[in-house]
Amino acid sequence: MLHMAVELPFRTLYWDGDEDGALVLLDQTALPQEESYIRLEDVGGVWDAIKRLVVRGAPAIGVAAAFGLYLGIRGIEEEGRLWSRLAEVKNYLLSSRPTAVNLRNCLERMEAAARECEGSGAAEIKQALFQTAKALFDEDVELCRKMGECGAALLPDEPTVLTICNAGALATCGIGTALGVIYTVASQGRRIKVYACETRPLLQGARLTCWELRRVGVPVTLICDNMVGSLLCNHRIDACVVGADRVARNGDFANKIGTYQVAVLAARHRVPFYPVAPSTSFDLRCPDGGSIPIEQRDPDEVRRVWGRLAITVPDVAVYNPAFDVTPAELVTAIIWEGGVLHPPLDEAINTALEERR
Amino acid sequence: MLHMAVELPFRTLYWDGDEDGALVLLDQTALPQEESYIRLEDVGGVWDAIKRLVVRGAPAIGVAAAFGLYLGIRGIEEEGRLWSRLAEVKNYLLSSRPTAVNLRNCLERMEAAARECEGSGAAEIKQALFQTAKALFDEDVELCRKMGECGAALLPDEPTVLTICNAGALATCGIGTALGVIYTVASQGRRIKVYACETRPLLQGARLTCWELRRVGVPVTLICDNMVGSLLCNHRIDACVVGADRVARNGDFANKIGTYQVAVLAARHRVPFYPVAPSTSFDLRCPDGGSIPIEQRDPDEVRRVWGRLAITVPDVAVYNPAFDVTPAELVTAIIWEGGVLHPPLDEAINTALEERR
Repeated sequence: MLHMAVELPFRTLYWDGDEDGALVLLDQTALPQEESYIRLEDVGGVWDAIKRLVVRGAPAIGVAAAFGLYLGIRGIEEEGRLWSRLAEVKNYLLSSRPTAVNLRNCLERMEAAARECEGSGAAEIKQALFQTAKALFDEDVELCRKMGECGAALLPDEPTVLTICNAGALATCGIGTALGVIYTVASQGRRIKVYACETRPLLQGARLTCWELRRVGVPVTLICDNMVGSLLCNHRIDACVVGADRVARNGDFANKIGTYQVAVLAARHRVPFYPVAPSTSFDLRCPDGGSIPIEQRDPDEVRRVWGRLAITVPDVAVYNPAFDVTPAELVTAIIWEGGVLHPPLDEAINTALEERR
Repeated sequence: MLHMAVELPFRTLYWDGDEDGALVLLDQTALPQEESYIRLEDVGGVWDAIKRLVVRGAPAIGVAAAFGLYLGIRGIEEEGRLWSRLAEVKNYLLSSRPTAVNLRNCLERMEAAARECEGSGAAEIKQALFQTAKALFDEDVELCRKMGECGAALLPDEPTVLTICNAGALATCGIGTALGVIYTVASQGRRIKVYACETRPLLQGARLTCWELRRVGVPVTLICDNMVGSLLCNHRIDACVVGADRVARNGDFANKIGTYQVAVLAARHRVPFYPVAPSTSFDLRCPDGGSIPIEQRDPDEVRRVWGRLAITVPDVAVYNPAFDVTPAELVTAIIWEGGVLHPPLDEAINTALEERR
């Protein structure tokens, strides 16, 4: 079996230059029509980019926020001021989006790295923060690679899979979570076919997943979100493979709105359902899905398509949660960088994650 | 309890004038932005209006096609030619859309009415066809009224209901099937709240259901199709009330794509699930859902929103069935003009419909 490295013809986010450099983001609000990059040198720009979904996807948000934190304190020359500014910037970045836990996990890693240099002066602390942000980036690349290997070993030889939203290279610093598994299968010379849910209201499936699978050369078929049931009735689907924005201690997890109903349908049709999530997306402080904060977004995201085309009567009431919670009972197994977690998930998570601490 | 007649501030389709008149359709492709009517005097225009969804909804299609058949033979003066033309026009109209059985049922009613006048000359046959089309219109108004009464009696006093697509006045000659039930509840002075699935790809929920509920004054909240699961987890929904394009003999039924997954989710959350369908939407020749032809539509409906806004990469493969089949096992009861059909549905349908024959 061939094992070629997966090569991506685009970059979702990267740091350009040395510690005086800038964070560069592929502007995902303009995809698939335009592939343009924006360069950020202050934390306000990073906050705004996360809020507006210029950068999105739990792992990518975490790393972007880490660089954002560094940008937010880069100009401070005095250690005392640095500590107060750091707390302030951390809270500011935490306020950008509530559901994905990677944001908090990465910012806590940054803060801990700074604390280790406490008393050695602003320059050293800033250096530690810069190096930690870069390390988080590199780690995420590696996490994706490992999840890809674990997931590819779990899927049948030449699988047809269903996914929702974008849990791809565009959601991480590496090859992605769910799509990382798909790319790894493809890199092993195995044929793979993907069905992508368009994922209203913001169409991350239609806009981003179709775009990146096309760029990499993996066959993809687009469906509307209400066609999942019909698809499972009429076509062979070997697995549903999705991302996760936050995995609770009992295996419940939050992911893009619609994931829960894909899981319910997969269970009815006896199709394996696999969330793919790095340890940075697990929240051991969160006992179950009921404790995960769910972001409610602007009603106009539903009333208009892509902010451009009005599709309903003005000012109609709207329910617009950005995420939903899939209960552990519907999860066949969770793919993470350490392997595959099988039910009972509470025990599996506890054993696997506690060992890492 | 108040029983006010439901008054509609618009007309979906009507015949304008005497037998030399024309079929007038509210152009549903322009809603909700524009309320414009088109006037049709030939069968080609009617075929095109059905195909392009200027008029849609199983009962409305059936009646529009009946008037279309009349328009198709109106110019014929000789009985021999009329019979061959009638067969030709009937097949032509049948080719416009395959799933809703009302089209066939109405055209067969028209043909049978003509056959009763066989030998009495073209003028008399044409008169019979015109009168039958008008009778089908009036019957549909009455079917809606009766279904509304039966459904309103089944729902809790002040219900919150979920619906998909548009099974409203815009889908019939009267107050609608599913929405007819909702209007009847409202006309009885009972408070009712509706959640409407937007219903991609053609957004009949966002465009049509929100528009007509607003026009009539019933509170409506719009959701994307992937929010049904989240809604059922987080809000009290008393019933799912939907239309039906064709009900098979065993109680399986076809309806707008996405209906099946609403039914699966309703079952999981123990929410009653009611299709509302007049006897004209039942197909006793069809043993089960597997025998219902499912219309596959243009991939561009998915690739673009409303034909206007491209939302994905060009030429991406698309799966675009316009309908799906909900198995009888997921149906709590079927509301029809004769009352409520409870499981076992095969027996209930057989008893109820055979009696009507």
